[in-house]
Amino acid sequence: MLERIKLTDLHSKVMTAEESAKIFENGMTVGSSGFTRGGDSKVVLKALAERAKTEELKVTLITGASLGHDTDAALAENGALTKRLPFQVDTTLRKNINAGNVLFIDQHLGETAEHILNGQFKIDVAVIEVAEILEDGSVVPTTSVGNNVDIAASADKIILEVNTAIPTAIRGMHDIYKVEDYGSRTAINITACDTKIGSDVIKLDPSKIEAIVFHDITDMAGDIVPADEATAGIAKHIVTFFENEVEAGRLTKELMPLQCGIGKVANAVLGGLEHSNFENLVMYSEVLQDSTFDLIDSGKMDFASASSMTVSQECYNRVMNNLDFYKDKVVLRPQAISNSCEVIRRLGIIGINTSLECDIYGNVNSTHVTGTHMMNGIGGSGDFARNAYISIFVTASIAKGGNISSIVPMVSHHDHTEHDVDIIVTEQGLADLRGLAPRERAIEIINNCVHPEYKEELMSYFERACAERGGQTPHILEEAFSWHTRLKQTGSMKKVEAETLVG
Amino acid sequence: MLERIKLTDLHSKVMTAEESAKIFENGMTVGSSGFTRGGDSKVVLKALAERAKTEELKVTLITGASLGHDTDAALAENGALTKRLPFQVDTTLRKNINAGNVLFIDQHLGETAEHILNGQFKIDVAVIEVAEILEDGSVVPTTSVGNNVDIAASADKIILEVNTAIPTAIRGMHDIYKVEDYGSRTAINITACDTKIGSDVIKLDPSKIEAIVFHDITDMAGDIVPADEATAGIAKHIVTFFENEVEAGRLTKELMPLQCGIGKVANAVLGGLEHSNFENLVMYSEVLQDSTFDLIDSGKMDFASASSMTVSQECYNRVMNNLDFYKDKVVLRPQAISNSCEVIRRLGIIGINTSLECDIYGNVNSTHVTGTHMMNGIGGSGDFARNAYISIFVTASIAKGGNISSIVPMVSHHDHTEHDVDIIVTEQGLADLRGLAPRERAIEIINNCVHPEYKEELMSYFERACAERGGQTPHILEEAFSWHTRLKQTGSMKKVEAETLVG
Repeated sequence: MLERIKLTDLHSKVMTAEESAKIFENGMTVGSSGFTRGGDSKVVLKALAERAKTEELKVTLITGASLGHDTDAALAENGALTKRLPFQVDTTLRKNINAGNVLFIDQHLGETAEHILNGQFKIDVAVIEVAEILEDGSVVPTTSVGNNVDIAASADKIILEVNTAIPTAIRGMHDIYKVEDYGSRTAINITACDTKIGSDVIKLDPSKIEAIVFHDITDMAGDIVPADEATAGIAKHIVTFFENEVEAGRLTKELMPLQCGIGKVANAVLGGLEHSNFENLVMYSEVLQDSTFDLIDSGKMDFASASSMTVSQECYNRVMNNLDFYKDKVVLRPQAISNSCEVIRRLGIIGINTSLECDIYGNVNSTHVTGTHMMNGIGGSGDFARNAYISIFVTASIAKGGNISSIVPMVSHHDHTEHDVDIIVTEQGLADLRGLAPRERAIEIINNCVHPEYKEELMSYFERACAERGGQTPHILEEAFSWHTRLKQTGSMKKVEAETLVG
Repeated sequence: MLERIKLTDLHSKVMTAEESAKIFENGMTVGSSGFTRGGDSKVVLKALAERAKTEELKVTLITGASLGHDTDAALAENGALTKRLPFQVDTTLRKNINAGNVLFIDQHLGETAEHILNGQFKIDVAVIEVAEILEDGSVVPTTSVGNNVDIAASADKIILEVNTAIPTAIRGMHDIYKVEDYGSRTAINITACDTKIGSDVIKLDPSKIEAIVFHDITDMAGDIVPADEATAGIAKHIVTFFENEVEAGRLTKELMPLQCGIGKVANAVLGGLEHSNFENLVMYSEVLQDSTFDLIDSGKMDFASASSMTVSQECYNRVMNNLDFYKDKVVLRPQAISNSCEVIRRLGIIGINTSLECDIYGNVNSTHVTGTHMMNGIGGSGDFARNAYISIFVTASIAKGGNISSIVPMVSHHDHTEHDVDIIVTEQGLADLRGLAPRERAIEIINNCVHPEYKEELMSYFERACAERGGQTPHILEEAFSWHTRLKQTGSMKKVEAETLVG
């Protein structure tokens, strides 16, 4: 094990997770590695949670994105969190957030590093998973980079988790570039998905390293949810759209660099590309799932850039056993770079993200169930949607057995405004909103994306809004949330016989 | 006059505006210069409007931003517009947009050029105001650059308006850089407000120039609205905030590059800086008003970058008579560059923009009166707010003699989501939302920004929303627009005695 600490002065810092957790103090701001399930803290944050069981120990926790291994659950359950940012997916934490017990900052994933750089947050202790510590104290990251670079730079003290389950041959899979301080910043000179502009290691100040903890726990495996009828339908519409764009001369067979949110729709879309005529594909995304590695293996995809990988156990093993092969095809970057507005706009990305609900004008709610309750967070969807070449949002047209329409008169929470939404796709069809004004967008969305059960009522809402109120974006404000209110009152958005819309 | 056309082959193209307007055909997409009142088409679009009086001649019109000289009014009145983008401020056009007679695409000003580059819009005829045409057909812009570069590049035919009221000595005040096509794009290498990366002229294909029209009409003068009690109060709060940030070590006396929306608040804030201790200020904005030139003259400001200047007649004369002086202090750029996400984030800009209404969580409505009717457009506010170092939104706390509260339970239209809003300022005070979760944001906004008349009811709404509904962003959806409904029904958002909130 100790051969993974090349800077031998640090051998004396090796301790157990429990010992290392004594560094934490009540009220501290802790920064941790972890982006989705990749490269998260496996033992130190758990030890923090354990301490919080018996003593007053509450921290602000800043990560890359969500964590695996139920760490967020343990922290939330034991009251260890005052504030959490910028993303989470944990059921227990979610409950605590929505109950107001944990303050959650839902943040564009590309901006967290900026908020550390501009002084909004100062890290007291950083917890970073690494594969190896080099002679100069630099560290080799594991399966994600996340906000590690800026968290480590800002931290007063650093705890390293050395994960011996990760082969040291992973070195070379990362491109570590630190966004410069304001005033001396230059361009982030990435001009293609495979451009490397940085180092293969994270530079650290070794004197900040207060503890080193060994473990051999692999990332929690990603769920592979097979495509259902809705996701398969959505994938088909998107592939057809791409084919039509090639026909129209606005895309080539290489498409443009792809970004996909995580989940079954993303897997279905990328799976759809495997059996298409597109070729030499590339990705510039934030998380890589199995489907990316499958596209690489099948020869359809040349290169993929992201900040993290979250894959099944099978895929994980495949990658770890063939690191030399994948190192030429995959790069993991800090999320300030994977989600950089500058790079995204320059490369001209096709962004595919999931929405909870959309409205008739193309505004998107990605986060808030019934407008109030946090699901996961906006993640990187805003970084990509705002700056994409084509910004696509997908959702099944209905949910809860048809009791919820995912297309509503007005979204109950706005994450993405109509300005940032080019295409909406449901299994019903695809609405191409490019170059359309709001009243045109409404007709396109209602005609193409809405489930038949809700179509007539939604068109009626739009027509009455135009006739009775008018304006650039016609709405009848007192009815705008009537579907949500009905859902709350009756358990369904469906119109009950003889019910008025306002009821 | 003809000495302004150095490419003598083009002398034969000189004609009247009326003659040039014969080039337009029904259904065409026309691109025109003009950003606010600066450098707009003075005579050719008017001639187009005149033709539309008597014949079926409807076009899509794409400009930089709004136009002066009531050109938009003439076009709208005569039915010459099918579609208009990306911004407008005209009363007559606004009426036609809100009546559904003209389709309006309200667009981030930094993105219009992208939509031309990615094929969403193809320009048939471009109308560009210039100061001079050089030997190779290149042209010297006037008081704005706007979208001229990409409009001219996309156009099949070009009509030039040579404005002899603009001294040819204006050459050198512009920095013309064309964003490259996707696939071959490199960084936009601006690292300071005064970096120049392009040419001092716009390169044109002379064979596209079909008509040249002379005129000597100056830009319509900008309105100088003196600061009132509310704007003076807002300016004072912002200056105090800056002073506190310097004290806290997060800003220096040079601040960061400033961006100000147009209007009296912007003038008041910049005016406030004139009598402050800040120095060596710089601007990276989209429009320069009198206040910028005043700051330059008083020695407080070193440099200002924008896409346009819209100033009073006095200031206009001052600039035109001292071009050699101002050319070293001011640069006008394409709006794809002045409003580039890449440059804005790199420079770390303090963005100050105006809102129509804000809500308790810090979402901002910049555009839609009562959620439906377009005022002007989102303009560049989103380009700056999303990528700013500090994103500030300002509004008087009340409007219409107190019958409207500018802070409401939920904004009736979302232009900027809470993610992109750091600071809200009214004459009542300043809410610093950095690092706060939604429930914290609500308390900060209600306590600091709301007019006393509305404070108690708004806090009651928030507290009831927390207690009755809970969640990350507590709302009572069926009450969220109750203030707007009450305004519609009673002419005031004020609570009537014995009225329930739902009423």
